[in-house]
Amino acid sequence: MENAIVDGSTRLFGIVGDPVTQVKTPQLMTAIFRAQGINALLLPFQVAQEGFEAAMRGLMSLRNLDGLVITVPHKVRACGLVDSLSPRADQVGAINVMRRLPDGTWYGDMFDGEGLVRGMQKQGFSIEGKRIKQLGAGGGGSAVAVALAAAGADTITLCDPRQSLAQGLASRINRFYPRRPAGVTADSAGTEGYDLLVNCSPVGMRPGDGMPAPFGEFDPSLGVVDIIMHPEETPLLAHARRCGCRAMNGKPMIEGQLESFCNFFAIRQP
Amino acid sequence: MENAIVDGSTRLFGIVGDPVTQVKTPQLMTAIFRAQGINALLLPFQVAQEGFEAAMRGLMSLRNLDGLVITVPHKVRACGLVDSLSPRADQVGAINVMRRLPDGTWYGDMFDGEGLVRGMQKQGFSIEGKRIKQLGAGGGGSAVAVALAAAGADTITLCDPRQSLAQGLASRINRFYPRRPAGVTADSAGTEGYDLLVNCSPVGMRPGDGMPAPFGEFDPSLGVVDIIMHPEETPLLAHARRCGCRAMNGKPMIEGQLESFCNFFAIRQP
Repeated sequence: MENAIVDGSTRLFGIVGDPVTQVKTPQLMTAIFRAQGINALLLPFQVAQEGFEAAMRGLMSLRNLDGLVITVPHKVRACGLVDSLSPRADQVGAINVMRRLPDGTWYGDMFDGEGLVRGMQKQGFSIEGKRIKQLGAGGGGSAVAVALAAAGADTITLCDPRQSLAQGLASRINRFYPRRPAGVTADSAGTEGYDLLVNCSPVGMRPGDGMPAPFGEFDPSLGVVDIIMHPEETPLLAHARRCGCRAMNGKPMIEGQLESFCNFFAIRQP
Repeated sequence: MENAIVDGSTRLFGIVGDPVTQVKTPQLMTAIFRAQGINALLLPFQVAQEGFEAAMRGLMSLRNLDGLVITVPHKVRACGLVDSLSPRADQVGAINVMRRLPDGTWYGDMFDGEGLVRGMQKQGFSIEGKRIKQLGAGGGGSAVAVALAAAGADTITLCDPRQSLAQGLASRINRFYPRRPAGVTADSAGTEGYDLLVNCSPVGMRPGDGMPAPFGEFDPSLGVVDIIMHPEETPLLAHARRCGCRAMNGKPMIEGQLESFCNFFAIRQP
């Protein structure tokens, strides 16, 4: 296609979320397609919760659309739309990627957790043997907790205002990883006795958001991870840095995932 | 967005058809967006006839998709999906563009006919007072016949194997343009007594297609127009040129429409 950006033969991929302006996957993946001479684009698709299934069925029926990345707030519901799941996605109960198989059915997988763990390890956070407190037990949170358990966390304590979500996720971790006990707490702000604090709630993403809990001073030995990517420094991360903590945002999580997306969508890696 | 091709804020437009690899609107419109510094793309969406309404409802529900161009074979069915129509689209009974209005409803219009007429006039075909034979009375054909009547054709004779379509279109023209009598014929190949032959059937588009009717030698005074754009020279146009006729493909039709699309989608014109 010479240097045209798009033509009638362009294959389509997308990222489905709401909001969607903050996502970085379109420019990152599209740059990879172009570097490899592949006539494809990865587009932002803003899909509201209302009418989600209808919008997804519409996208999935496009004959020139080959795969979708799924982001907040759709990772759990998207799980119900695919015909088959990886074992990992089945453990998590949510997906963040889906692709059309040669037989026309759709297959889902979940890379959020392993992406974050790989990013943490690169940034010098150790997970093995650590006592972890995690805020948020939705789609992204489930993926992170399962991956933290798989990476050898000592204990994982979950806090989510949707108590049944937190309880369900703890039970799932205890079933799949019986040596990594998971529990729940209603105390969102306490960090005493923990080595790592991981925020998987969306609080901090929207302008005007504060911290996801009314935190006091952190001990400088506490590691703090916020899976939010935009803004780059959430109020939680700003607070953590002021307290002298090692802190990390969600950017390494998605950067760690690009390689997984390429493999999943069967693109030669950059 | 600097020089990125796509990011989370990119606004989406699309062209809906099946097949869709042959369309030129994506590269033409996307080049206009970029020349004007507008962060938008116009994408090919391959939508099959089966499941058309569901696919369209899905696309129409994307919050960052602002408008669609509609092409073969969906122009008539798309008409039933919009909330309001231009008077011209109402006459034709088909649309080739739709956009979301500020109140969230969808509005449709039809530029195929005026685009073709403008292209014909630029290429030196006169329409006023001419006796025209037209093959094909589907969505595109309806638009062309209505525009030819509006441009002052003497008579329009329609031929389509779907006789009721041809008959319905002739009745519509006779109602809106009572001084430009329209009729139907079952004789697809005869050209005696006509000044212009216009092919609005899809025959000639697919590899291996022949001519849309078993034509004999054309009189060199016959003007021949084929609204197909790809291939650039259909078997019908090759035959017309061999017979010494003035001949034109569908490219001027779409080129004549770019300005209309820009106005319709409220983009500053190139």
